[in-house]
Amino acid sequence: MAGNSFGKLFKLTTFGESHGEAIGGVIDGCPAGIKLDFELIQLEMDRRKPGQSKIVTQRKEPDTVEFYSGIFEGTTTGTPIGFVIKNTNQKSKDYSHIKDVYRPSHADYTYDKKYGVRDYRGGGRSSARETACRVVAGAIAKQFLSTLKINAFTSAVGTISLDKPYQDLDFNNIETNVVRCPDPVIAEKMIARIGEVKKQGDTIGGVITCVIQNVPAGLGEPVFDKLHAELGKAMLSINAVKGFEYGSGFEGSKMLGSAHNDRFNEDGSTQTNRSGGVQGGISNGMDIYFNVAFKPVATTLQKQDTINSTGETVEMQGKGRHDPCVVPRAVPIVEAMAALVIADYTLLRKQETN
Amino acid sequence: MAGNSFGKLFKLTTFGESHGEAIGGVIDGCPAGIKLDFELIQLEMDRRKPGQSKIVTQRKEPDTVEFYSGIFEGTTTGTPIGFVIKNTNQKSKDYSHIKDVYRPSHADYTYDKKYGVRDYRGGGRSSARETACRVVAGAIAKQFLSTLKINAFTSAVGTISLDKPYQDLDFNNIETNVVRCPDPVIAEKMIARIGEVKKQGDTIGGVITCVIQNVPAGLGEPVFDKLHAELGKAMLSINAVKGFEYGSGFEGSKMLGSAHNDRFNEDGSTQTNRSGGVQGGISNGMDIYFNVAFKPVATTLQKQDTINSTGETVEMQGKGRHDPCVVPRAVPIVEAMAALVIADYTLLRKQETN
Amino acid sequence: MAGNSFGKLFKLTTFGESHGEAIGGVIDGCPAGIKLDFELIQLEMDRRKPGQSKIVTQRKEPDTVEFYSGIFEGTTTGTPIGFVIKNTNQKSKDYSHIKDVYRPSHADYTYDKKYGVRDYRGGGRSSARETACRVVAGAIAKQFLSTLKINAFTSAVGTISLDKPYQDLDFNNIETNVVRCPDPVIAEKMIARIGEVKKQGDTIGGVITCVIQNVPAGLGEPVFDKLHAELGKAMLSINAVKGFEYGSGFEGSKMLGSAHNDRFNEDGSTQTNRSGGVQGGISNGMDIYFNVAFKPVATTLQKQDTINSTGETVEMQGKGRHDPCVVPRAVPIVEAMAALVIADYTLLRKQETN
Amino acid sequence: MAGNSFGKLFKLTTFGESHGEAIGGVIDGCPAGIKLDFELIQLEMDRRKPGQSKIVTQRKEPDTVEFYSGIFEGTTTGTPIGFVIKNTNQKSKDYSHIKDVYRPSHADYTYDKKYGVRDYRGGGRSSARETACRVVAGAIAKQFLSTLKINAFTSAVGTISLDKPYQDLDFNNIETNVVRCPDPVIAEKMIARIGEVKKQGDTIGGVITCVIQNVPAGLGEPVFDKLHAELGKAMLSINAVKGFEYGSGFEGSKMLGSAHNDRFNEDGSTQTNRSGGVQGGISNGMDIYFNVAFKPVATTLQKQDTINSTGETVEMQGKGRHDPCVVPRAVPIVEAMAALVIADYTLLRKQETN
Repeated sequence: MAGNSFGKLFKLTTFGESHGEAIGGVIDGCPAGIKLDFELIQLEMDRRKPGQSKIVTQRKEPDTVEFYSGIFEGTTTGTPIGFVIKNTNQKSKDYSHIKDVYRPSHADYTYDKKYGVRDYRGGGRSSARETACRVVAGAIAKQFLSTLKINAFTSAVGTISLDKPYQDLDFNNIETNVVRCPDPVIAEKMIARIGEVKKQGDTIGGVITCVIQNVPAGLGEPVFDKLHAELGKAMLSINAVKGFEYGSGFEGSKMLGSAHNDRFNEDGSTQTNRSGGVQGGISNGMDIYFNVAFKPVATTLQKQDTINSTGETVEMQGKGRHDPCVVPRAVPIVEAMAALVIADYTLLRKQETN
Repeated sequence: MAGNSFGKLFKLTTFGESHGEAIGGVIDGCPAGIKLDFELIQLEMDRRKPGQSKIVTQRKEPDTVEFYSGIFEGTTTGTPIGFVIKNTNQKSKDYSHIKDVYRPSHADYTYDKKYGVRDYRGGGRSSARETACRVVAGAIAKQFLSTLKINAFTSAVGTISLDKPYQDLDFNNIETNVVRCPDPVIAEKMIARIGEVKKQGDTIGGVITCVIQNVPAGLGEPVFDKLHAELGKAMLSINAVKGFEYGSGFEGSKMLGSAHNDRFNEDGSTQTNRSGGVQGGISNGMDIYFNVAFKPVATTLQKQDTINSTGETVEMQGKGRHDPCVVPRAVPIVEAMAALVIADYTLLRKQETN
Repeated sequence: MAGNSFGKLFKLTTFGESHGEAIGGVIDGCPAGIKLDFELIQLEMDRRKPGQSKIVTQRKEPDTVEFYSGIFEGTTTGTPIGFVIKNTNQKSKDYSHIKDVYRPSHADYTYDKKYGVRDYRGGGRSSARETACRVVAGAIAKQFLSTLKINAFTSAVGTISLDKPYQDLDFNNIETNVVRCPDPVIAEKMIARIGEVKKQGDTIGGVITCVIQNVPAGLGEPVFDKLHAELGKAMLSINAVKGFEYGSGFEGSKMLGSAHNDRFNEDGSTQTNRSGGVQGGISNGMDIYFNVAFKPVATTLQKQDTINSTGETVEMQGKGRHDPCVVPRAVPIVEAMAALVIADYTLLRKQETN
Repeated sequence: MAGNSFGKLFKLTTFGESHGEAIGGVIDGCPAGIKLDFELIQLEMDRRKPGQSKIVTQRKEPDTVEFYSGIFEGTTTGTPIGFVIKNTNQKSKDYSHIKDVYRPSHADYTYDKKYGVRDYRGGGRSSARETACRVVAGAIAKQFLSTLKINAFTSAVGTISLDKPYQDLDFNNIETNVVRCPDPVIAEKMIARIGEVKKQGDTIGGVITCVIQNVPAGLGEPVFDKLHAELGKAMLSINAVKGFEYGSGFEGSKMLGSAHNDRFNEDGSTQTNRSGGVQGGISNGMDIYFNVAFKPVATTLQKQDTINSTGETVEMQGKGRHDPCVVPRAVPIVEAMAALVIADYTLLRKQETN
């Protein structure tokens, strides 16, 4: 079914497999008149791209975006923005060894069950390569939302996690280290941990926290399209994500109402923000913040038993160049999806106000 | 904007405020030929309704459903099912004292900011009363999905939580106690805890776990409409929900890939199920299970300071009959939303297979 | 499938069969703050309702609308407007004689083929009774669009048609005669013709013209959701409609470009308006006008041969009280659907302008 | 707003301007396992492409399609099919003379009003060049619908029209002449007429008839998404279309019910087919047929007065190579849109049957 579009008015449709000729997408509904900074777009691509540091996959992909429409003399025209990213690093032969094998905790088995046809070259459509298209669209959404600040960062790698609330962190530090953790000391520990895991040919999970600031009050579409529900769906649609919580989250479920409620200041802001910037599915003008849990990458370089498409047990071993931890590269993806949700709800909001 | 519909092919649209004349909805896309058991529908309504036990609000609402269309001689006809639930317990005067007051951690403030008009009678549209309509639709979806088993239960109230995996629980115990926890011993502790909290005029949060069994492989629509992403949105759209995790969830983010991966059996099932029945956004035939975190109810019976619509600080005290803990009544709502998602994806699935 | 909703942002979902307990709908996305005139709504209902004159069916239905939500103290709140119209005139027994019969040129056969279940009481869902819900929503859309003028009228009954362009007609005359033709002389001929047809137990078709004035430039969403394409779909979704043309329409296809083009005045208006107020799918500020062709009502009171559900030939004769010509009662329906389209596109437009 | 997608389950999204680097699209929801014949796809492209005969524009565009995804080893995989058609014939300088000019009966004025930004190079997004993407998707939809026969043909050029019902025509003659009229004698007259018009630097309109055969009963989604309503929208979304009628169409509005009704045969087929294969918005298994009216192309080579963006009157003259009559090249576009509608409704249908 047609599940490759996201958003109602600011809408992204993506296509492409990890080992096809190209991936790409269409951004439909981007307002006209936005002067685009193409360097900023490429900068976001570079934050996601493989080979950027020693703790991510050493695969090389330039990930250059070709824009084919919707932009005239550097400015959006209001017509759909079509773009393509060529796959320069297919290496299909690398994958012949898994042609008939279902890799554990990958989508090989389920895609085969669903479609009855399998593009066995790497993850095909289920590969996180698709997220490069999300970053392109998110980078444009960010330029549309120029007054907002959207910052995601690595808050945990395995059991190593930030011990401070985000208010005590300096977001300027996020890009100063390869793991994208704003606390330099914790960052070093995270990097070391990923290094160990990599040496063992293993992988490790983690958590990304995202903070959206300067959001106007009034964004959100109850009752089913609540702002945090759409943010949750957006994050859960990212590869390897296992959980989402916003504001007080799972910890909030342990509290008493008298302790959990956010007191109002007379200007309508609140003294605490356990609501995470959203009440009743609508933004209240406070910071929106949430956590996204990522499982460890399923492809390890260790030997493991699995089955092939005829149901026989076979031994396999991950080859090639995989991420020991997906979290550092997922930071820009989380920001991109957040930007797409806020852009869409910003457009939806416009028709309610005169 | 039109955010009051859920689902693509099996689609629910709801309307109604807690203190209007009625709430109701339209179920569009329910297949023809389903012989409905109306007692089962009412049974689900009774699991959600107020006044059902000493640990929930003592407000009385019969919550009887009137069906107006889409059913002929007890069988669905394929045309939209329109239904209405009359509000028999409006008591609008109860609410005059909060006419101009923004209750802390409620939607009063955000609805006012968004719409500029406020139905101050109770929660209006933001009230959990709306969820009664979801339970009606979910009860019909369950009958369409008669081969599936969908069981939700209370797994935590505040810090009191189940210490066993769901496989070691007897789901037949869920309805044997008012808190809907399948472990009788833990259930007693939860009930006692809610009783204390209620005595203090306070409220408490909790967690609901949901397990969906006998799901066929192949449900899910990558890349944005992944099955778990839609389940997450469905749960996050329920009042008071702060978090969602499936399979290994947030705990999984602390693990190594070598420990996290689910080994295949030769029949395609897996020895462990950290994937939570979903790989790459598509069901794999194993149990789907997830946790949903609920914050404590914002309305306490204790005095608290807040502001009114002109920004003055005022003291308020919750009146009337509120839930000390929303979790027991939310169990059927979680099941209903799960049923709506699976029903919708079951229909979506049909067009991919010949 | 869920085909009972119309519109993207100003969205109507309807339910109900002609002989069920009630019909109704949900208007989702109507902006907040519109003070509603309920008499105007009932006035539109009365223009559509049966029994209003000697040339329409003598069936009696008060068609009173009960609003259940989305309106507080007479003003829209931005939440979904749920409404119900009780069926006071079911007379199900009237229909037992057609229980197993497929009436020629009705939807009995196709509904049975599609759903395998048939509500044989009259048209069931396929009855034009459903359009009463469209008139309710259209009447609210008109109040949202208070600066526009939407006038539909009967321009042909059988071969009797208006011979003047709409600019030469006085729309104040539309409601002065029962056939709703703004030319009193032609109106008399039409009424006489319908009278003859009725006496023969026969039915006759006709054409409705609709003119929308004061539409701002810029409404329309290329390339697939062109304004005139959505208007066409809206009109073709009305029972018994066989054709739609706008601006120069089918006549325009016979012309040369040099004669067809509309010259601009210096203010951007055009000297002629063969474009019908739409260029490239976007309104240009000129009048939007179009024609809608209605077939003759399929139910005649004459004997005809047909088949039953087992494929045997049977003789049948329409009973009860049917319209000899549907056109006079369809005038408010055409206006309602036009209002719904313009309301939706007006909301869509808002997010494109800053 | 996001108006560049068509279809619900078999969904096409297009992008691209006539003078940008490329046009293209994404086909999302095409079922897996369809072995594609790429020559057939190119054949459809060649039927639409410019320069194919002396009666169409002499502009040259190879219109070669590059597929980037969704196809593996020649077979669809169920993932989105992304494709691109490079614009090899931009000639932007050709258009400098109209940079500030609003061409009469073009979309220049309305796009400028709507978006406030104008890509003045030719029609930009409003150019019929976009329809090349529809033909790609339609060609794939046709292969999915291999049991259906979809034949469109030119039934009128100006006042020269076919005088026979489609049943008396040999569709094998359609491609035997450049105007695509199945009656060789009328075809000659049409070709001669277009030749005259071209010599005068003028343009002329026409009508295309489309016949869809072997459609199963049961396609269509009442009440708003009736099959003929969606077909109407699809056709009205094609550039230059002014009208749509199906079955008896506008002529049917002049008839009596007793003469218009289609008698059933005992097998459920009908003796006549004024219903045009659709009753109550659902296919009945008979041929679906409809007419589509095209206005004369707005760009003539004659001098005409118009205005520029500052509202001054200027004289302009169409340059370059334009179609004297768009109808011959629009025949495959009509077929493509018909195929997209039937493909989408075929998928929608699947979830209603067990």
